[in-house]
Amino acid sequence: MTADFRYELLGQDGAARTGLIHTGRGTIRTPAFMPVGTAGTVKAMYMDQVRALGADIVLGNTYHLMVRPGAERVAELGGLHRFSTWTGPILTDSGGFQVMSLAKLRKLDETGVTFQSHIDGSRHQLTPERSMQIQALLGSDIHMQLDECLRLPTGDAEAERAMLLSLRWAERSLDAFEACPGHALFGIVQGGTVASLRIASARALADMPFGGIAIGGLAVGEPQADMLSTIETVEPHLPAAKPRYLMGVGTPDDLMEAVGRGVDMFDCVMPTRAGRHGLAYTRFGRMNLRNARHAADPQPLDEASDCPAARDYSRAYLHHLVKSGEILGMMLLSWVNLSYYQSLMAGLRAAIGERQLEGFIALTRAGWAGDPAV
Amino acid sequence: MTADFRYELLGQDGAARTGLIHTGRGTIRTPAFMPVGTAGTVKAMYMDQVRALGADIVLGNTYHLMVRPGAERVAELGGLHRFSTWTGPILTDSGGFQVMSLAKLRKLDETGVTFQSHIDGSRHQLTPERSMQIQALLGSDIHMQLDECLRLPTGDAEAERAMLLSLRWAERSLDAFEACPGHALFGIVQGGTVASLRIASARALADMPFGGIAIGGLAVGEPQADMLSTIETVEPHLPAAKPRYLMGVGTPDDLMEAVGRGVDMFDCVMPTRAGRHGLAYTRFGRMNLRNARHAADPQPLDEASDCPAARDYSRAYLHHLVKSGEILGMMLLSWVNLSYYQSLMAGLRAAIGERQLEGFIALTRAGWAGDPAV
Repeated sequence: MTADFRYELLGQDGAARTGLIHTGRGTIRTPAFMPVGTAGTVKAMYMDQVRALGADIVLGNTYHLMVRPGAERVAELGGLHRFSTWTGPILTDSGGFQVMSLAKLRKLDETGVTFQSHIDGSRHQLTPERSMQIQALLGSDIHMQLDECLRLPTGDAEAERAMLLSLRWAERSLDAFEACPGHALFGIVQGGTVASLRIASARALADMPFGGIAIGGLAVGEPQADMLSTIETVEPHLPAAKPRYLMGVGTPDDLMEAVGRGVDMFDCVMPTRAGRHGLAYTRFGRMNLRNARHAADPQPLDEASDCPAARDYSRAYLHHLVKSGEILGMMLLSWVNLSYYQSLMAGLRAAIGERQLEGFIALTRAGWAGDPAV
Repeated sequence: MTADFRYELLGQDGAARTGLIHTGRGTIRTPAFMPVGTAGTVKAMYMDQVRALGADIVLGNTYHLMVRPGAERVAELGGLHRFSTWTGPILTDSGGFQVMSLAKLRKLDETGVTFQSHIDGSRHQLTPERSMQIQALLGSDIHMQLDECLRLPTGDAEAERAMLLSLRWAERSLDAFEACPGHALFGIVQGGTVASLRIASARALADMPFGGIAIGGLAVGEPQADMLSTIETVEPHLPAAKPRYLMGVGTPDDLMEAVGRGVDMFDCVMPTRAGRHGLAYTRFGRMNLRNARHAADPQPLDEASDCPAARDYSRAYLHHLVKSGEILGMMLLSWVNLSYYQSLMAGLRAAIGERQLEGFIALTRAGWAGDPAV
């Protein structure tokens, strides 16, 4: 793709891989979880905290940023890195997914998609070319091609139409992407839950000069088994020399399962969104702090955690903050959850390096199940 | 009051004083601004940040904490310090003010006030004795007597009735307060805007063994001139050896004016509340970040500030966060504002020590007015 954007494989355990993605703005340890910085902020977190948790890269949402404050505005202000104070690599999505889920009055054709902003009703057009331009204006390190993401379930013919359109848009995205050192463009595998379509999509993309390949169109409400079988279908057709990114996934269990099937990169709003809704992810599993059983509990969420939010505040205090709708509750639980996600990824990386992935997954699950030996 | 709670005068400039309040949990540099930690949290701030800004003491609201999570619950959990992770001194109000402004179905008589929680409708009674008990359960370092705070304007007879009731409650509060080393109870001057009532209240309280005296019943919507003239009326009757606390005040200008009239302590929700509503206080005055003129401004709020929130983020980014309703906008602007309030107090303390208060105030005002020489 470019001179210095490259994937370096460090170790394997079965299909699982650990490695490094070298970019112009720093190296990403994989498997990697990318905190979602939707509108230029990882919600309720300071970027310093995100960095300190071990996140090497964050994600920005092209749709959100193009409708507010606008890609040209971000560019005038020196790009998304300066705007948000995040100095490491940033991956931006293409905007297509949120156009489908958030925008009003969408009209999609071969050219692209026109829509009205959900914020102010302003009209926008998103084509493969415009998406590349916006992502360049934002100064993103990893661009994503524009694709058409369908809601599942959908008919096979519809899934095929969208997959083929996405392939044509992949070509146009590559043509429009102005390669510069240290940056990359990723293609996106589509095809719904139809194995033959997924394989055709993956093979076609594997032959194109992308810096990495994403699996899109999942994490849209389908059962975990469908998601995992789609990964298994696609994975053998992905180039081993490029990173694989499963978009929009997922729960800690989803991450472990997908890593075991060869995925290198993830993003999901779950840790921050759950944190804003009173849910904590720790090595003891998921906990709802809104629950009255925490009201008098002096224990921290995890006394052995490196994360001050998990270690230094009682569950009773967190319960009180959540019940009171206090912003600090959202701040602390977002911090706890991103900390857990990052520590899970660090654990997965180490386990793959030592070919101990199976044992690590079993131990992690035992912790969630409340096994006192963990 | 107690062996080691004491006020130490360090310097004077006209009526203005700078000094130290020694408490069992640390020393408070005065004039002091106390960030408000309503429900056990200074909203949208980590306590570490509050401490790092130079705040020596925070305030907790008895009303909020008694209705949720409950004073007995906080006591079971080791007190408000452990609950909130604030290790320095805490001042708690008596609960009376918020009963008047927030609770439903209030009934006030000689005994005290009964009311229903605004949260869940539960019934509570607040008497001078119960207020002392609650503040002790919270583990507060500075307790406030229960008083009756009227809304202004009010008739003179009503102001006198409430002032006399507050004096009787002052006696009962003293009787009920279990003095322990390093802790103190403050009396509260009432009397509306009637000078003779204010003087009578101040003189009566000055003769009682309080650790400090507060001026209450102000900052309830009256013009600044009324507030300042009330301070001028009361101040000569306050014991010089005890700290004076102006409750619920105020704007940066209010603080300077009141310090110039001999006040030592303040609390106000303004810096955090304004921060949650897109307003920034800096040495350049008050700025509304919601205003479109900030949308493309790459400058930070104050490049010379020690506060990362004021120094490291562009006004355009803050505008974007505020317009987008992002929690980080509230976090950053609360931080900026508390930082400014603390730096203003530090400046006032230094200026009084050097007998340069007038010059400091003039320079501060010139900065707010946009004088480029500042």
